[in-house]
Amino acid sequence: MSIDGTSEQRPPRIRLGMVGGGRDAFIGGVHRIASRIDDHYELVSGCFSSTAEKSRASGADLGLDPKRVYDDFLAMAKREARMKAGCEAVAIVTPNHMHFLVAREFLKRGIHVICDKPLASTLQDARKLVKAVEASGAQFILTHNYTGYPMVRHAREMVAGGDLGEVRVVQVEYAQDWLSDDLESTGQKQAGWRTDPEKSGAGGSTGDIGTHAYNIACFVSGLTLESLAADLQCFVPGRRVDDNGHVMMRFEGGARGMLWCSQVAPGNENALRLRVYGTKGGIEWAQEDPNYLWHTPLGEPKRLITRGGAGSGDAAGRMTRIPPGHPEGYLEGFANIYAEAARAIRAAQQGESAADAIYPSVYDGFKGVSFVDACVRSSARNGAWVTPTSLK
Amino acid sequence: MSIDGTSEQRPPRIRLGMVGGGRDAFIGGVHRIASRIDDHYELVSGCFSSTAEKSRASGADLGLDPKRVYDDFLAMAKREARMKAGCEAVAIVTPNHMHFLVAREFLKRGIHVICDKPLASTLQDARKLVKAVEASGAQFILTHNYTGYPMVRHAREMVAGGDLGEVRVVQVEYAQDWLSDDLESTGQKQAGWRTDPEKSGAGGSTGDIGTHAYNIACFVSGLTLESLAADLQCFVPGRRVDDNGHVMMRFEGGARGMLWCSQVAPGNENALRLRVYGTKGGIEWAQEDPNYLWHTPLGEPKRLITRGGAGSGDAAGRMTRIPPGHPEGYLEGFANIYAEAARAIRAAQQGESAADAIYPSVYDGFKGVSFVDACVRSSARNGAWVTPTSLK
Amino acid sequence: MSIDGTSEQRPPRIRLGMVGGGRDAFIGGVHRIASRIDDHYELVSGCFSSTAEKSRASGADLGLDPKRVYDDFLAMAKREARMKAGCEAVAIVTPNHMHFLVAREFLKRGIHVICDKPLASTLQDARKLVKAVEASGAQFILTHNYTGYPMVRHAREMVAGGDLGEVRVVQVEYAQDWLSDDLESTGQKQAGWRTDPEKSGAGGSTGDIGTHAYNIACFVSGLTLESLAADLQCFVPGRRVDDNGHVMMRFEGGARGMLWCSQVAPGNENALRLRVYGTKGGIEWAQEDPNYLWHTPLGEPKRLITRGGAGSGDAAGRMTRIPPGHPEGYLEGFANIYAEAARAIRAAQQGESAADAIYPSVYDGFKGVSFVDACVRSSARNGAWVTPTSLK
Amino acid sequence: MSIDGTSEQRPPRIRLGMVGGGRDAFIGGVHRIASRIDDHYELVSGCFSSTAEKSRASGADLGLDPKRVYDDFLAMAKREARMKAGCEAVAIVTPNHMHFLVAREFLKRGIHVICDKPLASTLQDARKLVKAVEASGAQFILTHNYTGYPMVRHAREMVAGGDLGEVRVVQVEYAQDWLSDDLESTGQKQAGWRTDPEKSGAGGSTGDIGTHAYNIACFVSGLTLESLAADLQCFVPGRRVDDNGHVMMRFEGGARGMLWCSQVAPGNENALRLRVYGTKGGIEWAQEDPNYLWHTPLGEPKRLITRGGAGSGDAAGRMTRIPPGHPEGYLEGFANIYAEAARAIRAAQQGESAADAIYPSVYDGFKGVSFVDACVRSSARNGAWVTPTSLK
Repeated sequence: MSIDGTSEQRPPRIRLGMVGGGRDAFIGGVHRIASRIDDHYELVSGCFSSTAEKSRASGADLGLDPKRVYDDFLAMAKREARMKAGCEAVAIVTPNHMHFLVAREFLKRGIHVICDKPLASTLQDARKLVKAVEASGAQFILTHNYTGYPMVRHAREMVAGGDLGEVRVVQVEYAQDWLSDDLESTGQKQAGWRTDPEKSGAGGSTGDIGTHAYNIACFVSGLTLESLAADLQCFVPGRRVDDNGHVMMRFEGGARGMLWCSQVAPGNENALRLRVYGTKGGIEWAQEDPNYLWHTPLGEPKRLITRGGAGSGDAAGRMTRIPPGHPEGYLEGFANIYAEAARAIRAAQQGESAADAIYPSVYDGFKGVSFVDACVRSSARNGAWVTPTSLK
Repeated sequence: MSIDGTSEQRPPRIRLGMVGGGRDAFIGGVHRIASRIDDHYELVSGCFSSTAEKSRASGADLGLDPKRVYDDFLAMAKREARMKAGCEAVAIVTPNHMHFLVAREFLKRGIHVICDKPLASTLQDARKLVKAVEASGAQFILTHNYTGYPMVRHAREMVAGGDLGEVRVVQVEYAQDWLSDDLESTGQKQAGWRTDPEKSGAGGSTGDIGTHAYNIACFVSGLTLESLAADLQCFVPGRRVDDNGHVMMRFEGGARGMLWCSQVAPGNENALRLRVYGTKGGIEWAQEDPNYLWHTPLGEPKRLITRGGAGSGDAAGRMTRIPPGHPEGYLEGFANIYAEAARAIRAAQQGESAADAIYPSVYDGFKGVSFVDACVRSSARNGAWVTPTSLK
Repeated sequence: MSIDGTSEQRPPRIRLGMVGGGRDAFIGGVHRIASRIDDHYELVSGCFSSTAEKSRASGADLGLDPKRVYDDFLAMAKREARMKAGCEAVAIVTPNHMHFLVAREFLKRGIHVICDKPLASTLQDARKLVKAVEASGAQFILTHNYTGYPMVRHAREMVAGGDLGEVRVVQVEYAQDWLSDDLESTGQKQAGWRTDPEKSGAGGSTGDIGTHAYNIACFVSGLTLESLAADLQCFVPGRRVDDNGHVMMRFEGGARGMLWCSQVAPGNENALRLRVYGTKGGIEWAQEDPNYLWHTPLGEPKRLITRGGAGSGDAAGRMTRIPPGHPEGYLEGFANIYAEAARAIRAAQQGESAADAIYPSVYDGFKGVSFVDACVRSSARNGAWVTPTSLK
Repeated sequence: MSIDGTSEQRPPRIRLGMVGGGRDAFIGGVHRIASRIDDHYELVSGCFSSTAEKSRASGADLGLDPKRVYDDFLAMAKREARMKAGCEAVAIVTPNHMHFLVAREFLKRGIHVICDKPLASTLQDARKLVKAVEASGAQFILTHNYTGYPMVRHAREMVAGGDLGEVRVVQVEYAQDWLSDDLESTGQKQAGWRTDPEKSGAGGSTGDIGTHAYNIACFVSGLTLESLAADLQCFVPGRRVDDNGHVMMRFEGGARGMLWCSQVAPGNENALRLRVYGTKGGIEWAQEDPNYLWHTPLGEPKRLITRGGAGSGDAAGRMTRIPPGHPEGYLEGFANIYAEAARAIRAAQQGESAADAIYPSVYDGFKGVSFVDACVRSSARNGAWVTPTSLK
């Protein structure tokens, strides 16, 4: 990626709307920054809260034209679709249970959707959303943002290129500690909806972070899950969803894996970590130190591959803005998903397909919801092996 | 621990015999060095190999009196027991299937036994060995050496002292890569017996290293395993035992855990790693960097506790020879087990009990064999939850 | 810092012009991204190259109105100053020797200047630039961007708050390896001007990166340099400026320090590292892992303070966008300088002073140039102690 | 190195005496453990303290024959030399100012000497000791123990083999924090003599640890110091020797270096760290994590070479007892010097020279004392460049 477009002419910015992400939200701001970093988007409209007053205040915060700030996402979808310069794409950053409802309205009007994960809070909604995308001509991009990190791309390229040989074992984990206590009872908004099964879905830590871990494990390894056995726990008294999950996985072709997700592991801030081992080598990556990828060819010394450094290939290179040693972080990784989305949207606007754009699709999203559903079902059956529900 | 006994009078060295550990062995040499580091033992006799010639050559290598080098462990037990200055203790460093047979003969003659892990290659032998110890007046010390590391002792002291609150989650893993290929077919001796179920037992990686991981997890957390669900794999074609194992664990009282052992994970040399999380904090320790213990009190910054450094307490202190920043390693950790054994043996020789000596006992050994047995049984039943066989 | 301004109304964007930073430049793109991340600026005009054609092409790349893309920075300064909605601030990202010439023209027309480091290529120019700033009502911000990292701010706050006691020793280094070979002879643009004393100044590595190291050392420690002794080397045959520098420093009040800068140290990508030791504790920070700050209170365990995590205070908090464990990087640190600049510029536009805005000033810039000058002078005198030239 | 001699016949143990190292000493115990690890020595006699009573108590602690425990080192030298089975070698572990006096008496009687560093507390004594060694037929081994670490050996082999190309820059440092306060006034024995110029010499941190850093830098890089400029400080009020030192170094052939030693840097336990950079690559090693050596071939990813692992060569291999991933530490590194000494002594006893034994000699020791002397002289002359005094 050239830095900031200075070696090729940049097309006009994509007009972006947003649903959710008002005051006190976390991920809405992340999406907005991500949309700005590479200057592919311009935020033009939004419905930032289900509370009208809050939506308007947030729109004003962001300096939007008040006419483009809506009290209601349906009204927004209708009006923006009719406008000559209405939003071309919409970012959906609501709690999980709203994703489908919101996305449907924009998709049916041909407005491209960039949607936060997980795809939906239920398998039914996830299935409906797949159909809505298929019925629409619009693009749908799910922000499993960790797949946007350059070294995750490089890891995927290595596996695909055979550097690890045949993959045998995948170890993935995503640990946090912020829910070690009963934070939801204090009124903290993030903890509130994320532990409310009505809003987040039946999976707690599995849905909130386990799905990220599962997504990145499949993204890098290229494997397809065949079955899983899960033991989910809810350690904090009174909590209504799992806050720790242990999962054993069997992949098609014989590879095996373990997944651990936890929001009650003190000392872990946002510790997503992936390790993949094959017949010819192994790799390790940790989200908190994302510019590093460790690679050991079997029988050789471990090597540190750095973003932009020696040994880092094309797949990472196109996701990289600045030289090695100048760390890129979470926001840049997120921006990479937005950059891929821009490729896909612009191609679609030309009636083409952006073959080179790599991003999590609605099908990846369905797999994620299906993974959470399978974890919950397995755990309810005392850790029996279950097959994730497939789309058909 | 004072350095090298210079602040207290050292009692006479314990006369030590050895069974196993001849030329080309690995662990025999480790035991010998461990026995020498603190000068508590003097090697006086041995039966170093089942091949007489090899045993004699090894005895000569070690500068032993040829009369004290035996072709046969039974002859050794008999003669040494009759001698006035025969060995007071014997180190057993044979392949696993011989542990019981050898130990029995020395125990019944009142000679203390320091035995390599696992306790035995079968549950039956393990049970018999427990009885042999109980029937004997002699001490029995199992060298789960990783419990000898000072920072492991400190971790245990922290958990016992309530620093972590109530333990919720235990993540333990032991990964290696040296069996990624079919090394046993090349005639490599270590690979040969360790992948031969007749010699090592039904568990491969589970028995060789998983049992260490399980032991240290229990040692530090103080938890008792209630049941487990295991998915064991044998990735290398033709191998007769597991070379990778995934285990979910449920402990009495509600804590949960995961255990991963692998000998086919490229980039891992001897990566035993333990993490314990409770309501009040979390700790992390890695065998390859054993002088460090990471501790995060919930809501506070992570702290690095170093061997001998600030924050390192009495339990670690008595296992420490040199100041912080001067790394102690595997051999010193192993020597700590030998030092504890010396305390126990000397106390026994005085008709006392060494209340302060902490070392893995025959009961810990039984639990280890029972763990491996449970893993194998669970995996054979497609990962069903099984209860480890108890002694009674 | 709230994420993306959603809890307070954002003022209109500052209109930004740019001089330098066209195709093939590195730092221009960085400035543009940094200016966008928090949405405080809008790029409206530029003179991107001394080659007219290249400037125009770059302007087109960036989607600017061709009328606002200039062939000549003087013409730009004149016209933009006259326009009703001309640029309010200009980012200067040319090679060093142009900083003064460009800045002067904008400053004299009341346009605020955000200028890349070092301030100038000669001490004379630096002095003139100070006067130009003093004669102007405009703000001047120097992008010693590493001072924008949250944990650097926290380090500074700790020292100022007495957490380290009295500072005794400062160890700072900035090592790279990209100039280990004679890259400038290959036509590589970055290597070319950075090793050309006409363009970069008399100091090579000292000016390019040593000045960053010096700046951050003073920023965090709060110390003032009294004298230095430098031994500069030029290892690559034919190179015209130093590519490695060793400097001993004496600070007012008795503290001492060492500074190492190198561009010929293989294995170092952008290894800026600072350590400060006082009577009560020590801290360590490394630019390549910028979200971590290590703090050891004397006699206590080392602690890891993370950006946004426990123990991280207000000074870091206002520079932080996202929760702990979600790494921020170089671009966010750079954006923090732009956010501080926006505070200062908006305050100035209201006739006020932004007391809370912390950023490198023209005086810091002078000190940096004076430091490089002192290094060159000392080295020419065989490492004699020299006093940096002061402004008066 | 085979583990514990089991693949070759071990010669009889060397009879070892010791001077110094009684109760409350630190380094005496280290020498004793080091002498035992590989079973090359047997401690037979000693004069453990200048206080007769303490010497006897220490001898009793160690279980020695009281007749072989002396009140006076001269009596010991005389009697042991006359005995048929007197000590063949003596370990000298007294404070620095006694090294020469003691060594002389044993050397002149043909008893080999293993002496702690630094060689002497004055340049005069160092010179005399060189002469005493040259006049004697006995071997003299100085325990600059850090050169015994396997990865230090590997680093040296790499430089010598040209893996780094021509060495340009050496950065070495040795930082501690235990003297941050005025510990010597509390009666702490170690702090007492180490800060007493009568006992330790004119250099404080320079003599105690700087000399280690200098030794290892030369050992690995193969460079010869040409001149140095030093700025030594004494930060703790009332202290009589330096507790922090900054040194710039010029080596023959054009390489340059920096050395930092400090005993007042909170957060550093025993942080000896070496970095060597050449035209073709760079290496990094840290004493606190001694099993790792980082190597970056210019333009390739950084590699982690581990003790015993892939990429670790013969020089390290002969210093290694156990497989990779089983950390060896300080005591094993120290034992390696004792193993090399045993080779040298046994060869000498056969009238041969042990060409393959690599250990610090009396000449290395002279260079170390000369280095400290030069630091003190340079600092006294305000950091002027001085040439270390050579032997002739």
